[in-house]
Amino acid sequence: MPVFLNTQDPDFETGFATLLSAKREDSPDVDAVVADIISDVRARGDAAVLELTEKFDRLKLSAETLRFSDAEIDEAIEKVSATDRAALELAAERIRAYHLRQMPQDEEWQDAAGATLGWRWSAVSAAGLYVPGGLASYPSSVLMNAIPAKVAGVARLAITVPTPDGLVNPLVLLAARLAGVDEVYRIGGAQAVAALAYGTATIAPVDKITGPGNAFVAAAKRRVFGKVGIDMIAGPSEILVIADKNNNPDWIALDLLSQAEHDESAQSLLITDDAAFGQAVAEAVDARLETLERRAIAGPSWRDFGAIITVRDLDEAAALSNRIAPEHLELCVADADVLSLKTVHAGAIFLGQYTPEAIGDYIGGPNHVLPTARSARFSSGLSVMDFLKRTTLSKMTPEALRAIGPAAEALAQSESLEAHGLSVRARLDGLNS
Amino acid sequence: MPVFLNTQDPDFETGFATLLSAKREDSPDVDAVVADIISDVRARGDAAVLELTEKFDRLKLSAETLRFSDAEIDEAIEKVSATDRAALELAAERIRAYHLRQMPQDEEWQDAAGATLGWRWSAVSAAGLYVPGGLASYPSSVLMNAIPAKVAGVARLAITVPTPDGLVNPLVLLAARLAGVDEVYRIGGAQAVAALAYGTATIAPVDKITGPGNAFVAAAKRRVFGKVGIDMIAGPSEILVIADKNNNPDWIALDLLSQAEHDESAQSLLITDDAAFGQAVAEAVDARLETLERRAIAGPSWRDFGAIITVRDLDEAAALSNRIAPEHLELCVADADVLSLKTVHAGAIFLGQYTPEAIGDYIGGPNHVLPTARSARFSSGLSVMDFLKRTTLSKMTPEALRAIGPAAEALAQSESLEAHGLSVRARLDGLNS
Repeated sequence: MPVFLNTQDPDFETGFATLLSAKREDSPDVDAVVADIISDVRARGDAAVLELTEKFDRLKLSAETLRFSDAEIDEAIEKVSATDRAALELAAERIRAYHLRQMPQDEEWQDAAGATLGWRWSAVSAAGLYVPGGLASYPSSVLMNAIPAKVAGVARLAITVPTPDGLVNPLVLLAARLAGVDEVYRIGGAQAVAALAYGTATIAPVDKITGPGNAFVAAAKRRVFGKVGIDMIAGPSEILVIADKNNNPDWIALDLLSQAEHDESAQSLLITDDAAFGQAVAEAVDARLETLERRAIAGPSWRDFGAIITVRDLDEAAALSNRIAPEHLELCVADADVLSLKTVHAGAIFLGQYTPEAIGDYIGGPNHVLPTARSARFSSGLSVMDFLKRTTLSKMTPEALRAIGPAAEALAQSESLEAHGLSVRARLDGLNS
Repeated sequence: MPVFLNTQDPDFETGFATLLSAKREDSPDVDAVVADIISDVRARGDAAVLELTEKFDRLKLSAETLRFSDAEIDEAIEKVSATDRAALELAAERIRAYHLRQMPQDEEWQDAAGATLGWRWSAVSAAGLYVPGGLASYPSSVLMNAIPAKVAGVARLAITVPTPDGLVNPLVLLAARLAGVDEVYRIGGAQAVAALAYGTATIAPVDKITGPGNAFVAAAKRRVFGKVGIDMIAGPSEILVIADKNNNPDWIALDLLSQAEHDESAQSLLITDDAAFGQAVAEAVDARLETLERRAIAGPSWRDFGAIITVRDLDEAAALSNRIAPEHLELCVADADVLSLKTVHAGAIFLGQYTPEAIGDYIGGPNHVLPTARSARFSSGLSVMDFLKRTTLSKMTPEALRAIGPAAEALAQSESLEAHGLSVRARLDGLNS
């Protein structure tokens, strides 16, 4: 049974606070193991990567077979059904179209003092994308990570995807091909992250690593951060649905379950202004759980972390939503656009009853890599910006230096940084002599 | 003596690699101490903050005096000289004007399938800015951190600045006032970071913490990351000057020293296509070092980490610059604009001989919080973006769902996520019934 809360109950705040602070994931402490693996890859390069791949993935490779050849990719891709290929192509096209619009502009202008100011964006030179193997090897995640990198202009994009016992997911290779990935390596775990960050004889180092992974991958990303850039370390997934009574309870139930089926630690929340509707959704969830393929995952998630919250009105719903700062937010209400203006802390908003969150996972266009664990309060989903960096530009004319240099000199003196002040003063004196 | 390198020397690559990989900072391991301080503040709130402030800052405060009152700020500000006030006001005005141009646009459009897509930017609700006390208590850093936050629209901006033995820097308080800071607390160290992240009875928690600090502050920021957002953890500062022979060696020497005087671990590099000019700059540095107030800091920095590199031509200079990925890059060459198009990995570029880097530290307009330690390969300086987050928007019409829903269903099935597919299928069936 999920938690039922009502903002009119006297103990609502206690229950809501418990929900907000629920620790949903116990990360095993693998940091020492990961530190050893990274040291080993730094010291021995390919040899270490090959040994670790044999040990963890039961796969004997050589430096020559670490990377998928084009022919191997071609062969694997042929196994993909026409339906799946068409779906993946449509997804790639829509994701690319959305992310193309995110490209920021360079700017340059002259101000009243005569200074030319501005900034310029440039792409990271090389990026690496970690793709999990086995069950969580999602082609959609390849598209969501690789396409923004290529749209940003990353010249070299490498993927690592472990193939335990040699098992390859042809859809992952097709997604890599569609996204324009340049290199695909059949390695995984902390050793793959280390190889991407520090390089080996076979794998050139990258500047930025993104993509989801297990506890070992997450720990390795934390450790190499600084040497390279990383994306966020994602926690278990969440959805919040705000729905009024004019919804089909079964549709909302399926939306909640589409989050719950990801992970026993996922969290699915419903806020409604109609207690009877909330009850109907709870019943619909139970009915669907009876036959759902992944009920062994979705059931515990819903039971342990699910909640149905009844509120007085939608303003109250928006206020609670902002405290939750959900990764995914569905607004299934009469005027979703108006409500969306009030729900400002959310990774992605899905408006109206015809926009199930699953559309955003695959085909809508926006990225599905989104801030979890309430971090939508201060961070954003993956975008082309994650593969770009900005260089600021300043150019003073003699006149501009005369106009603003003395203030810089004064501030340098007030901070006791003499050489700072002198570097301005020497030029001003030179101009006046 | 700094290192002299020449790309025509056979062992240049070895020398350059040594320069790139020089470990310039030994961070003391304060993690265990910091973990205890954070736990203490979480458990005991104000009481812990007050005790730790008495212990580390030799300052006995109460919950009532933790925060500067408006009257106290007014009184301190009156001590600032008219020159310093005018300089700080001009800096604030120019920094604000630059950062206002960074504000990104919301977007919303309808695509061919009938889907409405877009994104919306919103500000972090509350931010905290750490300002070091004592010698490194720089009013310019207050402006550089606080103004982007206020331009972004952060409603509540709090500053913590330790006042050891009660010593207050009036310029820091004036900078806070000019930047529109809402709350100023006279606390510092890991306890200040913990208070900002978790809140106490007196200090409400924030969503994002930025600003420089010592090893304790850096360790505390790393530990609270995830609970709140943080900016980068800055390393020691760097400058690279690329200069041809048509420059005043003394000006370039002062630019190199303006970095070296920050910290014994700072790094100042010169690349020139004229070996004799490089020699002249080295001599000018030595001459200036004889009288420089901070020669005890700048001298060791220049001796241990400084370098003068002679190259064949400016293309070679640009290539080396991109490998260095400097925090600050000065281009003192005939056509700095053209060269700047080739030096893409840099935090900030200063063009031409009338733009000493010190202008950017104080008054130019661009931010002086910039990526150090080669991280300009993958990251950017502080900006309004650090105080904003993006929410993506998707809205399907029945027609849009009919057009793209089946592809989402197919991809969900290929990833064995049944509820994802059903959440789309149920709606499609509903539309067709």
